Amino acid sequence: MRARRISQFEPLLIALVGLPARGKSQLAHRLARHLNWNGESTKVFDCSEYRRRHMALYGTHDIFRADNLQGSAVRRRSAREAVTDAILWLKEGNSVAIFDGTNITREQRQELNGYCLDSMGFRILFIECVCEDQELLEKNIIEILHYSADYKAMSEEEAVDDLRKKLEHYMRQYEPIDGTVEEISFVRVENMGETVTAHKVYGQKESGILGYLSGMRTSPQVLYFTRHGESEFNAIGRIGGNSSLSARGQSYARVLAEHLSAVASRDLRVWTSELLRTKQTAAHIPAPKRAIRALNELDAGICEGMTYEEMQEQYPQEFAWRDQDKLRYRYPWGESYIDIMTRLRPVLSALEDEDNILVVGHQAVLRCMLGYFLDLKLDELPYMNVPLHTVVKLTARGYKYEVEMTKLPVECVDTHRKQPKNCSISRTTADALVTVPSHYDTLPSNLWQNPSETQL
Amino acid sequence: MRARRISQFEPLLIALVGLPARGKSQLAHRLARHLNWNGESTKVFDCSEYRRRHMALYGTHDIFRADNLQGSAVRRRSAREAVTDAILWLKEGNSVAIFDGTNITREQRQELNGYCLDSMGFRILFIECVCEDQELLEKNIIEILHYSADYKAMSEEEAVDDLRKKLEHYMRQYEPIDGTVEEISFVRVENMGETVTAHKVYGQKESGILGYLSGMRTSPQVLYFTRHGESEFNAIGRIGGNSSLSARGQSYARVLAEHLSAVASRDLRVWTSELLRTKQTAAHIPAPKRAIRALNELDAGICEGMTYEEMQEQYPQEFAWRDQDKLRYRYPWGESYIDIMTRLRPVLSALEDEDNILVVGHQAVLRCMLGYFLDLKLDELPYMNVPLHTVVKLTARGYKYEVEMTKLPVECVDTHRKQPKNCSISRTTADALVTVPSHYDTLPSNLWQNPSETQL
Repeated sequence: MRARRISQFEPLLIALVGLPARGKSQLAHRLARHLNWNGESTKVFDCSEYRRRHMALYGTHDIFRADNLQGSAVRRRSAREAVTDAILWLKEGNSVAIFDGTNITREQRQELNGYCLDSMGFRILFIECVCEDQELLEKNIIEILHYSADYKAMSEEEAVDDLRKKLEHYMRQYEPIDGTVEEISFVRVENMGETVTAHKVYGQKESGILGYLSGMRTSPQVLYFTRHGESEFNAIGRIGGNSSLSARGQSYARVLAEHLSAVASRDLRVWTSELLRTKQTAAHIPAPKRAIRALNELDAGICEGMTYEEMQEQYPQEFAWRDQDKLRYRYPWGESYIDIMTRLRPVLSALEDEDNILVVGHQAVLRCMLGYFLDLKLDELPYMNVPLHTVVKLTARGYKYEVEMTKLPVECVDTHRKQPKNCSISRTTADALVTVPSHYDTLPSNLWQNPSETQL
Repeated sequence: MRARRISQFEPLLIALVGLPARGKSQLAHRLARHLNWNGESTKVFDCSEYRRRHMALYGTHDIFRADNLQGSAVRRRSAREAVTDAILWLKEGNSVAIFDGTNITREQRQELNGYCLDSMGFRILFIECVCEDQELLEKNIIEILHYSADYKAMSEEEAVDDLRKKLEHYMRQYEPIDGTVEEISFVRVENMGETVTAHKVYGQKESGILGYLSGMRTSPQVLYFTRHGESEFNAIGRIGGNSSLSARGQSYARVLAEHLSAVASRDLRVWTSELLRTKQTAAHIPAPKRAIRALNELDAGICEGMTYEEMQEQYPQEFAWRDQDKLRYRYPWGESYIDIMTRLRPVLSALEDEDNILVVGHQAVLRCMLGYFLDLKLDELPYMNVPLHTVVKLTARGYKYEVEMTKLPVECVDTHRKQPKNCSISRTTADALVTVPSHYDTLPSNLWQNPSETQL
């Protein structure tokens, strides 16, 4: 059990193994996003990008032939450079490097394994991608033809022919991992997660990765997000609480249902928080609904239900602290953005496995969720603009998501408070309140309705 | 992909599969501890306990013969009762039930799978335990002979013979899970985690479980824990900070090293926090050391470095809040017990995979760590007594841990503050401070030394 010798605290090199079009790159980038969000600084080192640096223009499949000496030399050199950069990344104190290459021969793997364990003292895990599902394979091939830099200059016909020949070259050289012969830690992923086998895989990072790899979804994925409709508290500038929708928020709920019936698939399902305003927003949508506690809005603790003006008056120190570091600031008896990111982890992982879900959430919660799918930096999250009465649609394209925002035609207040310039504890009240968005002081009659009508 | 139909939010029944002595019960209970700590309320339903209720006294292996009709009837009835209770547990709103039975026939599994998915709408995952490693198998058999209620009244010779025959009866009936024939989600665990195969395993709970199952350790395990030696801050009743050891703390560091060289194995390794006082405590131990940030003491935020008297004077409200709910209370800009439980999760999982580790930690951190291994209730953790200058040794016995506490002969202050009776915000200062342990006001000369000597 060779891998066991290396301490669990050492960084980890992940080396992908497998033929082209087996989903390696998609797996690499999705895994990287997952690990980064979980606090393991991770980067993907894509061997083909290094190869392209040495060949200004992609020629043909010919460079992948085993007996093409010049091609082999370039490919070996590119692999070496990618590994060198990956190791450098780990030496700099990062946690995981993913070497996205083919590593299809036993010799390549043995060399890499020895270098990593014996010379560097780092951990190493091989992940082999196998795909027997013809439909899935064809889907992957189409994505390569569309998105690969190699095929930008070719006609579709040429590209198809070239890729087919490239695959044949690789298939001739491929030696699948054999756990009875090779002394390596590996995970084999068949058909993008249908069957996952781990052999001599130890350690915490590795266990987490194994868990993530099982049950990755492969079919195209569409997710919708919206904040609840304008609530009574929104209208009068109060945060948190559990108020009902305002009359305009009620309109949004109806318009939202119409919009979705026009654009969303019939098997749409809806996830709401446990709070009234998200349940009311989803009320008219004819789809199965589930209320999830982890989707509840950031808990403002002792400031729940206050206006910003009241927070400044009663807790000026807390209010200034929050402005200084909104990401990490925790309300007394409440939460920070970091806290909700933590509680959102299982929901996000669950969501990655789903399709056609509408999440009806809250401002801070949606900032974190969208930040995850769009690979935003943590510090950007607390000031991201996620307006009311707007539907955000994410469509998976490979490992990236395309964003589409649709503002539905129902008026509402703006709840987005920018970071003020002066965040010191000794600032004036005017300085503290300068970015507070305008709101009503009490609910005007046109935004009021009988709460009993809207109770769920 | 039948299991996919059931929503990820439904509760999960785990059914173990495998011959006796394959480590099923150990796996069940360790998994339950792990899941409970991660917030998934989990309980094990042990089929053999139900069987024993129907047979006041265990007779012989004979009841396990396939053609023993009365025995079969009792076993079927016991299994049904265990499953019924497991389902009831899930219906009550709990998250996971583990059915610890043998489920060795295809028919049994098919029936259980259908009942769970179709009648209950719950998720179900089979975990098959296979053991080809003869050494491991013998170890498991010896544990059964020692600890099973069935063999309490037998001589060792009789018990060995009986268990051998029982195993033969089971082997005749055993049909290993075959993923090409059986339409079930399953994980196969070979040799307690050496190879782990997941087939059609989807969902967040399941992924986490799969990760946990890979790399479970099987050899006997000894772990040591101690708080740092008495620090200068301990002596003068201040919390947190990063002070050096007092002279008495320094003595403890030397006595601790002697004690361990006498009792611990030669491959001992030491994990400390990143704070001076734990590093100084480990300084004389001739073993590899690693400083781990997640082992740092609970961050007292704005109260770092204060005495309890000062906290009561400057933040009486915070001090009262903490006394009201010490488990969940978070210092402003600091942490709660719940917070450190969360950050300790990866360390605890890593520790479960290790052997011969000494953790040099802190009061709150060790309360949580020991609480995990000893299955304590969360509310007990913050008041658990973990005194200074004491070594706690845990020895794994099956899935339980035996505790041994050794107080080393070096004097120190007591830092354990009990919950006072009056926790109201309006209490008097005297009421708030009634349980503060006695301490020096400034460091007396006999506890002082030149800090430069002790800097690491």
